[in-house]
Amino acid sequence: MTKPFEMLSALLADEMQSVNVLIRDRMASKNAPRIPEVTAHLVEAGGKRLRPLLTLAAAKICGYEGPYHIHLAATVEFIHTATLLHDDVVDESNMRRGRKTANLLWDNKSSVLVGDYLFSRSFQLMVETGRLEVLDILANASATIAEGEVLQLTAAQDINTTEETYYKVIRGKTAALFSAATKVGGVIADAPDDQVAALETYGDALGISFQIVDDLLDYGGASQSLGKEIGDDFRERKLTLPTIKAIALANDDERAFWDKVFAKGQQDTGDLERAMELLKKHDTLNATKEAALHWGQKAKKALDVLPASELKQHLADLTDFVVQRAV
Amino acid sequence: MTKPFEMLSALLADEMQSVNVLIRDRMASKNAPRIPEVTAHLVEAGGKRLRPLLTLAAAKICGYEGPYHIHLAATVEFIHTATLLHDDVVDESNMRRGRKTANLLWDNKSSVLVGDYLFSRSFQLMVETGRLEVLDILANASATIAEGEVLQLTAAQDINTTEETYYKVIRGKTAALFSAATKVGGVIADAPDDQVAALETYGDALGISFQIVDDLLDYGGASQSLGKEIGDDFRERKLTLPTIKAIALANDDERAFWDKVFAKGQQDTGDLERAMELLKKHDTLNATKEAALHWGQKAKKALDVLPASELKQHLADLTDFVVQRAV
Repeated sequence: MTKPFEMLSALLADEMQSVNVLIRDRMASKNAPRIPEVTAHLVEAGGKRLRPLLTLAAAKICGYEGPYHIHLAATVEFIHTATLLHDDVVDESNMRRGRKTANLLWDNKSSVLVGDYLFSRSFQLMVETGRLEVLDILANASATIAEGEVLQLTAAQDINTTEETYYKVIRGKTAALFSAATKVGGVIADAPDDQVAALETYGDALGISFQIVDDLLDYGGASQSLGKEIGDDFRERKLTLPTIKAIALANDDERAFWDKVFAKGQQDTGDLERAMELLKKHDTLNATKEAALHWGQKAKKALDVLPASELKQHLADLTDFVVQRAV
Repeated sequence: MTKPFEMLSALLADEMQSVNVLIRDRMASKNAPRIPEVTAHLVEAGGKRLRPLLTLAAAKICGYEGPYHIHLAATVEFIHTATLLHDDVVDESNMRRGRKTANLLWDNKSSVLVGDYLFSRSFQLMVETGRLEVLDILANASATIAEGEVLQLTAAQDINTTEETYYKVIRGKTAALFSAATKVGGVIADAPDDQVAALETYGDALGISFQIVDDLLDYGGASQSLGKEIGDDFRERKLTLPTIKAIALANDDERAFWDKVFAKGQQDTGDLERAMELLKKHDTLNATKEAALHWGQKAKKALDVLPASELKQHLADLTDFVVQRAV
């Protein structure tokens, strides 16, 4: 099966080309050559560009024929790139998309300031659309993203973290931008309210599903395939759905273990293996996959009110594809 | 003489009270309690609130009677606070406004993310004004600020830094927000174009003058008063107008000295004293003061086209006051 993501890319190839031209144009800075160096490193590394594709698809599905979905797609990618730069500083990451991170290649200072620059540039791009409703949506998304990141910072290492808090965090770190990306596509196309609401719900639920699967894959997926690097979240003492569910079901002995490795940060040889066993014992990887499936289905169902089209079908297929990664 | 800044504060006390209420309201976050902790530390420390006062004054001088100058004043203070949080991370500062910095009290992560949050909140506040022109001005200012900071980062330690580069840096780090603060006051009041342009020029020139004086005071001012802590910029290898001017006039021996202390970063006992002597030899502290005076006068002159009022007089007096600090 061709990936629905690649089908979207193929159908929207012309528009994505325009988005890429706009991104390269706007990430330049005559005054500060460091800026395009850093952004090029990240932007040219070729992330999937999933978020701008969502914006383009949403606008086209709603019949948009103007030029501003290009600006909005570039805006969304700039916001995403800015948050990646800042995330890598916050997480002290060394690798991203298979390359060394900007904070490692240059320094934290450059990552912070270039992130600020991209965020400002995204803001300029959206102002050019001349649509206050779009600005409102993206301003709110930006605040939710930052709030989610701070919440994650303070919730990390806290073994009392609830699923409710987990969902707040991933709404901020992932779903807020997904839902803003799809919603603004509908708004710029002047789609009816129910279609705009459907696009927002789709983006939100897809983003949640996407992040749950990411967190699941960090423990090898539902099949606990141990082939690739796993356990980053464990080592970084980041509680995610598989561990939150396991802690909720833990007996006293297990709880003491989770307290040791997450709250106290005392991680010894064999602890990741013990964690994996506990996830298996309480079947939380399957439960996590079920949660991802639930949100994926919710995303797909939201599309019902939208007019039928090839693009819409690919968005629907995308919800399945996201969850299939979790196997 | 009562400081013109205090006269402005007194005349605009009611509006500033509303601005403070709005700031406290918007810096809250139910989801992430770390956010108000960090912002309260900085906001309650009581900076001068000069930038929001400029916005309020500009709007009132142009006859504005609506509610949105309050939002814009809070916006400007939020942008300023966000940049301070990020600056302290970039500069690895320990003290700000006589208190320990947030990056020291919490961590760099919190400073980066809370800065992002405040920036997003500022963005929400300005969207509420419903005025695209205002959004355009503040988006451009934000990009200029970030660009200036990156430029400063890369220009630091480079003894070939020109005055032209210096002015680009301080336009970014200081004047861009000053001029946006005054300009949006005129725009929200629907002032005629020549008045809006005058307010922009005033803010730009006042900001440049203000920053030149700050940089001058870091070497004790034009009278080289050594009473308080001086030489921060020297130790941080930041080239500013006094040293840029001295390097331009340096003989080979002196140039080797500047290369050693700024480019190579080899600073030994007595080097700050030698630097001070060279500034004196080439009379660059007085030349720097002259530059501050020039920009102060330019700011004052820009006010000519505005209608006469008590507030306008205080803005004019402010240009003198800023430079008087330089003695």
